[in-house]
Amino acid sequence: MTHPIFVLNGPNLNLLGTREVEIYGHETLGDLARLCTEEAAKAGLSCSFRQSNHEGVLIDWVQEAREGASGLVLNAGGYSHSSIALADAVRALSIPVIEVHLSNIFRRETFRHHSYISATALGVICGLGTEGYRLAIAALARRITGSTRGQSGS
Amino acid sequence: MTHPIFVLNGPNLNLLGTREVEIYGHETLGDLARLCTEEAAKAGLSCSFRQSNHEGVLIDWVQEAREGASGLVLNAGGYSHSSIALADAVRALSIPVIEVHLSNIFRRETFRHHSYISATALGVICGLGTEGYRLAIAALARRITGSTRGQSGS
Amino acid sequence: MTHPIFVLNGPNLNLLGTREVEIYGHETLGDLARLCTEEAAKAGLSCSFRQSNHEGVLIDWVQEAREGASGLVLNAGGYSHSSIALADAVRALSIPVIEVHLSNIFRRETFRHHSYISATALGVICGLGTEGYRLAIAALARRITGSTRGQSGS
Amino acid sequence: MTHPIFVLNGPNLNLLGTREVEIYGHETLGDLARLCTEEAAKAGLSCSFRQSNHEGVLIDWVQEAREGASGLVLNAGGYSHSSIALADAVRALSIPVIEVHLSNIFRRETFRHHSYISATALGVICGLGTEGYRLAIAALARRITGSTRGQSGS
Amino acid sequence: MTHPIFVLNGPNLNLLGTREVEIYGHETLGDLARLCTEEAAKAGLSCSFRQSNHEGVLIDWVQEAREGASGLVLNAGGYSHSSIALADAVRALSIPVIEVHLSNIFRRETFRHHSYISATALGVICGLGTEGYRLAIAALARRITGSTRGQSGS
Amino acid sequence: MTHPIFVLNGPNLNLLGTREVEIYGHETLGDLARLCTEEAAKAGLSCSFRQSNHEGVLIDWVQEAREGASGLVLNAGGYSHSSIALADAVRALSIPVIEVHLSNIFRRETFRHHSYISATALGVICGLGTEGYRLAIAALARRITGSTRGQSGS
Amino acid sequence: MTHPIFVLNGPNLNLLGTREVEIYGHETLGDLARLCTEEAAKAGLSCSFRQSNHEGVLIDWVQEAREGASGLVLNAGGYSHSSIALADAVRALSIPVIEVHLSNIFRRETFRHHSYISATALGVICGLGTEGYRLAIAALARRITGSTRGQSGS
Amino acid sequence: MTHPIFVLNGPNLNLLGTREVEIYGHETLGDLARLCTEEAAKAGLSCSFRQSNHEGVLIDWVQEAREGASGLVLNAGGYSHSSIALADAVRALSIPVIEVHLSNIFRRETFRHHSYISATALGVICGLGTEGYRLAIAALARRITGSTRGQSGS
Amino acid sequence: MTHPIFVLNGPNLNLLGTREVEIYGHETLGDLARLCTEEAAKAGLSCSFRQSNHEGVLIDWVQEAREGASGLVLNAGGYSHSSIALADAVRALSIPVIEVHLSNIFRRETFRHHSYISATALGVICGLGTEGYRLAIAALARRITGSTRGQSGS
Amino acid sequence: MTHPIFVLNGPNLNLLGTREVEIYGHETLGDLARLCTEEAAKAGLSCSFRQSNHEGVLIDWVQEAREGASGLVLNAGGYSHSSIALADAVRALSIPVIEVHLSNIFRRETFRHHSYISATALGVICGLGTEGYRLAIAALARRITGSTRGQSGS
Amino acid sequence: MTHPIFVLNGPNLNLLGTREVEIYGHETLGDLARLCTEEAAKAGLSCSFRQSNHEGVLIDWVQEAREGASGLVLNAGGYSHSSIALADAVRALSIPVIEVHLSNIFRRETFRHHSYISATALGVICGLGTEGYRLAIAALARRITGSTRGQSGS
Amino acid sequence: MTHPIFVLNGPNLNLLGTREVEIYGHETLGDLARLCTEEAAKAGLSCSFRQSNHEGVLIDWVQEAREGASGLVLNAGGYSHSSIALADAVRALSIPVIEVHLSNIFRRETFRHHSYISATALGVICGLGTEGYRLAIAALARRITGSTRGQSGS
Repeated sequence: MTHPIFVLNGPNLNLLGTREVEIYGHETLGDLARLCTEEAAKAGLSCSFRQSNHEGVLIDWVQEAREGASGLVLNAGGYSHSSIALADAVRALSIPVIEVHLSNIFRRETFRHHSYISATALGVICGLGTEGYRLAIAALARRITGSTRGQSGS
Repeated sequence: MTHPIFVLNGPNLNLLGTREVEIYGHETLGDLARLCTEEAAKAGLSCSFRQSNHEGVLIDWVQEAREGASGLVLNAGGYSHSSIALADAVRALSIPVIEVHLSNIFRRETFRHHSYISATALGVICGLGTEGYRLAIAALARRITGSTRGQSGS
Repeated sequence: MTHPIFVLNGPNLNLLGTREVEIYGHETLGDLARLCTEEAAKAGLSCSFRQSNHEGVLIDWVQEAREGASGLVLNAGGYSHSSIALADAVRALSIPVIEVHLSNIFRRETFRHHSYISATALGVICGLGTEGYRLAIAALARRITGSTRGQSGS
Repeated sequence: MTHPIFVLNGPNLNLLGTREVEIYGHETLGDLARLCTEEAAKAGLSCSFRQSNHEGVLIDWVQEAREGASGLVLNAGGYSHSSIALADAVRALSIPVIEVHLSNIFRRETFRHHSYISATALGVICGLGTEGYRLAIAALARRITGSTRGQSGS
Repeated sequence: MTHPIFVLNGPNLNLLGTREVEIYGHETLGDLARLCTEEAAKAGLSCSFRQSNHEGVLIDWVQEAREGASGLVLNAGGYSHSSIALADAVRALSIPVIEVHLSNIFRRETFRHHSYISATALGVICGLGTEGYRLAIAALARRITGSTRGQSGS
Repeated sequence: MTHPIFVLNGPNLNLLGTREVEIYGHETLGDLARLCTEEAAKAGLSCSFRQSNHEGVLIDWVQEAREGASGLVLNAGGYSHSSIALADAVRALSIPVIEVHLSNIFRRETFRHHSYISATALGVICGLGTEGYRLAIAALARRITGSTRGQSGS
Repeated sequence: MTHPIFVLNGPNLNLLGTREVEIYGHETLGDLARLCTEEAAKAGLSCSFRQSNHEGVLIDWVQEAREGASGLVLNAGGYSHSSIALADAVRALSIPVIEVHLSNIFRRETFRHHSYISATALGVICGLGTEGYRLAIAALARRITGSTRGQSGS
Repeated sequence: MTHPIFVLNGPNLNLLGTREVEIYGHETLGDLARLCTEEAAKAGLSCSFRQSNHEGVLIDWVQEAREGASGLVLNAGGYSHSSIALADAVRALSIPVIEVHLSNIFRRETFRHHSYISATALGVICGLGTEGYRLAIAALARRITGSTRGQSGS
Repeated sequence: MTHPIFVLNGPNLNLLGTREVEIYGHETLGDLARLCTEEAAKAGLSCSFRQSNHEGVLIDWVQEAREGASGLVLNAGGYSHSSIALADAVRALSIPVIEVHLSNIFRRETFRHHSYISATALGVICGLGTEGYRLAIAALARRITGSTRGQSGS
Repeated sequence: MTHPIFVLNGPNLNLLGTREVEIYGHETLGDLARLCTEEAAKAGLSCSFRQSNHEGVLIDWVQEAREGASGLVLNAGGYSHSSIALADAVRALSIPVIEVHLSNIFRRETFRHHSYISATALGVICGLGTEGYRLAIAALARRITGSTRGQSGS
Repeated sequence: MTHPIFVLNGPNLNLLGTREVEIYGHETLGDLARLCTEEAAKAGLSCSFRQSNHEGVLIDWVQEAREGASGLVLNAGGYSHSSIALADAVRALSIPVIEVHLSNIFRRETFRHHSYISATALGVICGLGTEGYRLAIAALARRITGSTRGQSGS
Repeated sequence: MTHPIFVLNGPNLNLLGTREVEIYGHETLGDLARLCTEEAAKAGLSCSFRQSNHEGVLIDWVQEAREGASGLVLNAGGYSHSSIALADAVRALSIPVIEVHLSNIFRRETFRHHSYISATALGVICGLGTEGYRLAIAALARRITGSTRGQSGS
């Protein structure tokens, strides 16, 4: 049986739909979890959707993904820009990882333009709102279920 | 009738499949054009797929998209990192724009980590190979055909 | 009934009075808690005084303040200079926030001169020792109880 | 008899209440002078409240404070960010000095984030509007009249 | 017979009046061409007014100006900030050159604050809208027709 | 009756015609005053032409212009590159302001390439010698007397 | 009785022997714990060997070392390069501290070349693999048991 | 039959002999073409000598060299310092490439000290005037005709 | 008759002997004036010794020196590091100028390591206390009275 | 027979015990040589201990170590921070090299925080005084005599 | 009689052929000396070929070249990037100087991209292996024997 | 008997009078030695005047000065800007040291504006040609023979 796709969300994403709605929209984290589960189900996959404000917990979960996940969607929120430790955990994975940001981080403050996660992930999707999660899961699913042509790094 | 989606490719992308295949894979630009056309067709849309090595030609095409396209997928290649003029042309568009890169530019030389296009686009997808084009067209199609929930900027 | 003022203290502030007394003085965190409670009481307000070495716990508490506090005094200690995630949590508050530092951070190492919290807070008080907490609570109390003239941001 | 507290205001603060009211509020410099005098009077102290657009005049006044003042509240306005000479004058004082800014300088242009005065003052209060002056005078008064517990530098 | 004044416009200026009207105003490039022709005519001069999105074409035209123009007004748009090649072409001219920008580039993004053209031109006019072109032509005309007092470099 | 145009000149401009004539030409400040008065007179306006080496005096004059001038031509000389206080005074004006420099500051030392005044002014003219003052007055006069088409900021 | 030596390991070190073995070798964290215990035992000392992915937990443990340890070996992993809070906790210790890294951090990415811990520790050992831990314990043991000649800071 | 050596010249090199002769000398581009042809002929090779002001044309030509040239001498002029796109085209070549500059770029403005081409070429020759072209052709010819000892990259 | 040597002192030097005596020593400005007068007298020269906290006054005096002095000793204090306007005034002098600092500015804060005056002066003497003034006057006197061998700039 | 371990000391280390004893302690270079010889002898190895103030001599000795040493302990003193040439010599070695510093260079001036040697050595030990030499020799001896488990680079 | 051409080689070049052969190739310094001598002989010139690891010795030799050489080929190795003193010695020469590097320094570490020698030499050749020396000698010979057309600096 | 004053001269100063005479003048090193000897003799002191191109030799001499000199005049030439090792040797001296430069290093290339020696010396004299040496010896002599008023560090 295939392992689930992990969808891990970092600090303040539990406030989704209630905070800075002009940036993040009105959908809640619960809505997003449902959207991810549906998208994964299309490919016959399950989805373990989690959120934490704790950097250490996120690292624990990324480490758990080494054995327990078939792919990882990671939105590390504010930790994207400061956590070498979290990026190191991602670097230790051999499953495919896609970094996602709801907003277009390149339109925001300069300190959000650099993410330590990016260089450790297969790819990055940002600025497409919750749609970005759906695309990431679709892309992972194609790789996991073999329906893509598996070029590495391209 | 809906305008086509423009898929514009910058310098050296005509070499796709023959250059640095360990980075860009074996698919050619022709393969990519077919993939894009197919993906657009799924949503009942057509696709105008082009490539040029000339910055000015790319600017002309982006300006043409103001009246003639319903969405834009832009892979500006090396011009992404140096062309304020091309980014200005994108900024003048009101249709949705997604920037795509085949490779994960954050794993490459530092001068490729910054793209002038990013802040002018709705969102960015990179590192997912030709799959990234497919996802970009899918995302644009949902916005154009109204099947997405239209949050702005999220 | 008015919500309490939250007074949140970051890493190593539990060592107050025992560490680098030439910088931080001899008062302990317990002394400081009493001082804050007394000052809040003058304005008929209560005070929820807490300390943690864990960035994630501090973020949880700041999020709790969204519903449960009428104002926030925040001394994020070393996290002030590195935590975008904590600053994001503060940015999501609509209650007034004052950042406090016991020492004058501008007299210390260069890496302490920049705080991510500052731009998310209403104002900053530093260098005035435990007196700074008292002033912050007094200022918040005037806003909360309406005894100030309510200019926003001035 | 105790010397007065000097409250020195730098360039353009004479325009208070008439300039950028969304940043600085509607109170005038005259209002502010009254507020300061009242706050000082609570502690039985007088207040010498002055404003100048001239860097040299401000330096002269700071030097005058060496013999003639018991404490100094200094809002050097635009000179805060450029005047080493004024900061040198403050450094030569042995009375307590508090730097005040009406607005939160950390929310404004980058060149306002650094103040040469900060490292020469006992402490800094910013972003609290005219309330910041009141707090500064209260803090100085406690030190001058001995009602605080005299920790140096904490 | 005196050569015409060249007025060369760079990328995206063909969109004038239709793009970012809050920055660039409602006048079109055609309006601007008429204004320039009229102003040149006042001094008995003709005006060759052109626009291109192509850096190479602009360089060709600047080279053409070596033999064919009596003065040059150059608004290189986005190429101002990135094109050493275009600036080199200007440097090779011996006729007077005035760089013009419609908007005040110093109020915009940091990457627009530096222009490679500036150091190769006689002078710079920016922020005065289409009026800036008129002033530039007037100033060139005085030099060309000898009605100014010919100070070099002043 | 319309207020005069203020023409304010900063430090060392009283030496005009006697200092670095290869940069600044042979005209004196008196010559320049006459040229400005004549140009203003063409539009039926008067001109208050002044010079000071004192930053504070320049700030006083800019503040005086708030009530007493219809437009401002400002050549702040060396203070252009260092005075936030003077730029703040200009920012508080609602009349149109044009910054002028006799020489092309972009051909000189790097520290002259940035002016704090530029972002607070409507526009900038540099490198055109005393002609630059004439153009600035002409442009202001058109705005003041309504003979221009009043686009703001374009 | 002498307190144990604390050996504290930061994020991802629990993956030792399973991750990037070309950098970190094949020994596991369990092997390393045994090696440390044996080395401490040679000097008649015990060893408290711990690992956590949580910055806050590491800070708690460093604080615990103030009363409960006679020396500290600290490999803070990725937190070395970002955590001012952890470095502050170390700065508050009076027992000797040696920072250890398994790999030679100066051969790796630039962001690993700076460690906030280094300036707070007595010394640093890096690049010597698990041997580095052994050396650190040996050095601490000599200081603790008095068999070294006690030069401070040399 | 061996392919010709391509000698590609970038913007403004068509002005050779007429522009800044104190830097570039009196020889024209025609003289240079003859010199190159003669030097290639010594080794029994032909030479395709071209110049363009258009970045896109230069990229097209470099791509053409993939199939049609046995070696490349490239003087990209001002594009050397700004064109990642052109450098990418060179990187895609497998024939030997030598970058040439007529002047010693390290004696000129700082922005000319870095060339994106350099890291993609086999080697660089600068400062030797037209002689540099001759040397480059000689060196390529030895590699192409096998008269050198073929060490790669040394 | 020979003009006097001007000895101009900037902000806070009137506090000499009373401020930071561990840096500046116990001699007062009066003592220093006497020392300078005596040293000048040895060469048959007079000395005009002045101090001001006002940048504008210092500029006025430097301009006065153009006609009224035979040499200039300038200690601009804090203005050395920030005043382009004062340096411009010195640049306009044709008499020899020596910059003097009592303390060794290279042992102090980084912002004191750069002086705008230095590049405009003949030479610099720092770190030698009041002795530095004596040496500067001696060196100027040798030049003025012709007792040195007059090499310029060496 | 095994080659000796080279222990090479750079500039000013001959002053050990007589210079800045609060940093470097009271032991002399002779004491240190004896300590190294003893430590090497424990593993049955000899030790060639040398010092020079001459960069070239140090390079000669490092080159000599290619054939004549089994391991290298290098304290390059001030040359650590400036000598690419010395680092190049170390890079050419195939024997194990450990860089040692008596003091903790990360507690000292910023220019001592970077060492060109570090990236060329196997590992670094600093801040442990003469003990650091002993540890380095012990670590090398284990590698040379095979008593360690030979992981490369870990 | 014409003076010989000096060919001076800096630190570690004596290891040529034995060190990092993938970068520097298999030829030894002796091979290189023969190649240079042969190339010089073609033009009827002799060659003084030397190598030293000592910066001072290289400076001595460059100074010797002032009187004793007709041209200089200089490969300063690691000193290229750090030695202002050596570059000063070259600057004092009036004979033509060509800087040579065996490898393409622009493909290597960033600190090798800048050479102090470059701006003092006539020209630079790098990346062409030992062939680069041959070309440099050929170019010098043409200048020395008058067979080139003597353009200076072109 | 008092030890001599050491006057140590660094690289290329042996070329004095023959190199760049427009910067350094026509006096030779021999002339300078005589001037120094004469000036020292005025105070009854002898002078040991030396020059070397070798950094190591200069360090040896500075170390020799610890026991053998009563004061040091040091012109380290190009090593001033690069040699931490030489500066460390100076830092180890307890005799007074004055750094001298013939030219005004602040008027020259940026890399000459910083000297590692400056912060280790008592003071600095530059730009006064050989006169600077005379002044330095005079100042040292006053300190050594007690004829100055002995302020430390002023």
